Amino acid sequence: MTKIVTAALIIIGDEILSGRTADVNLRYIAGRLNSLGVRLAEARVVADKQDAIVAALNECRARYDYVLTTGGIGPTHDDITAAAVAAAFDRPLIRHPEIVAILENAYRGSDMELNEARLSMADTPEGATLIDNPVSGAPGWQIENVFVFAGVPKIMQAMFESMTHRLTGGEPLRERSIVVDIGEGTLASALSDIQDRHPNLSIGSYPYYRGGAFGVKLVLRGTDDAELDTAAEEVIAALQDLGGNPRIEEATA
Amino acid sequence: MTKIVTAALIIIGDEILSGRTADVNLRYIAGRLNSLGVRLAEARVVADKQDAIVAALNECRARYDYVLTTGGIGPTHDDITAAAVAAAFDRPLIRHPEIVAILENAYRGSDMELNEARLSMADTPEGATLIDNPVSGAPGWQIENVFVFAGVPKIMQAMFESMTHRLTGGEPLRERSIVVDIGEGTLASALSDIQDRHPNLSIGSYPYYRGGAFGVKLVLRGTDDAELDTAAEEVIAALQDLGGNPRIEEATA
Repeated sequence: MTKIVTAALIIIGDEILSGRTADVNLRYIAGRLNSLGVRLAEARVVADKQDAIVAALNECRARYDYVLTTGGIGPTHDDITAAAVAAAFDRPLIRHPEIVAILENAYRGSDMELNEARLSMADTPEGATLIDNPVSGAPGWQIENVFVFAGVPKIMQAMFESMTHRLTGGEPLRERSIVVDIGEGTLASALSDIQDRHPNLSIGSYPYYRGGAFGVKLVLRGTDDAELDTAAEEVIAALQDLGGNPRIEEATA
Repeated sequence: MTKIVTAALIIIGDEILSGRTADVNLRYIAGRLNSLGVRLAEARVVADKQDAIVAALNECRARYDYVLTTGGIGPTHDDITAAAVAAAFDRPLIRHPEIVAILENAYRGSDMELNEARLSMADTPEGATLIDNPVSGAPGWQIENVFVFAGVPKIMQAMFESMTHRLTGGEPLRERSIVVDIGEGTLASALSDIQDRHPNLSIGSYPYYRGGAFGVKLVLRGTDDAELDTAAEEVIAALQDLGGNPRIEEATA
């Protein structure tokens, strides 16, 4: 059996916790990790406070194969991710010469000054490996199993795509998704029987409310396409027996 | 000084971690808690696995004043929140007679049967206080400082609004938000000086990328309107000195 490779995402951001900004990085990272055979096992949103970041980092990097962080690597006083990662790993914070060179190159010929605030983006825990930032210059970086990304979605995505080769995934999790117009309570017993017959699959039931009507989305997840197809056929037959009108939903990812 | 009242949100849901569904409950809860004087200090998305839910519950309920959970209280086999909360509190799972009565009433005269799967929604840890569900009947519930909500946003929101009187908040956190068209690195030093002059405020700097242009949103947070106004004026003056064109953004919450 293939090893299950897991990851945690730590979203560093007071602006998410205040409700002001909606996070969109979680969904992107979850979907992309999954297609690389890495399962996002947990995500946390933590405040811009060093002790909160350090606690989350140390719990997650011990528990999961990979940890990704987003946010807090810019030039302002509230960008404390580098200091927090340094504290979590008990490594000194140094001015990374390769990042200084990247910044010098990026700001040469620009009308912006490479001032001390911008140079502070070169501060990383000692021993960091860089993650390329093709959008705005200042790179992300990696220490052991922790990958540090920007929070701006466009930059985060570009950084992520530049480092996917460093992740060793297991078997990708495949899905079949079925939408039906009958109540969860009506289908629960039949669904539970199908789950019992397919212990290698994980079958989730997600009620929704849309346009005044309730419905249920059933999602079958597993690594074996043939077993997924068999179980999906069983689910569809059972839903039809219960008077429902199930339809397969095409994967969006 | 008013006590700072904190909360954590635990989002129970494989469907969020797979990237299939985007969570929208975090933002709603964050904004509403804030207006009630409760600060969302952390949020976690955990898998539909009992040990993961128990670990998150026990860490968060010890650390914060309130813990809210969303998801996993329906009638299907993957709805394991009640069992997980019971395990976290080391209480037996019982069939709650008041919920049974609510369900009997809801399904009486309906064309749906109150079968064993639906009755399982009455299973709670012993000693639960109910949270009214005006949308679809089956209630949420509370044990000590833990509040258990449905995951469907419309139902979660109705449940939340029915129990806000049980939360004792501190001073609500107020905000001033300023958008500007100059780089973070250009304003960092002036902003840091203003932060140093106003230790009671928390000033966040959030770069964004929209329509091909980078900009920065500065958010000042605190409980004192007068100090927020003073600091906002200082920020605007500093940004104008730096050649920027700052504008105050109206609060959306």
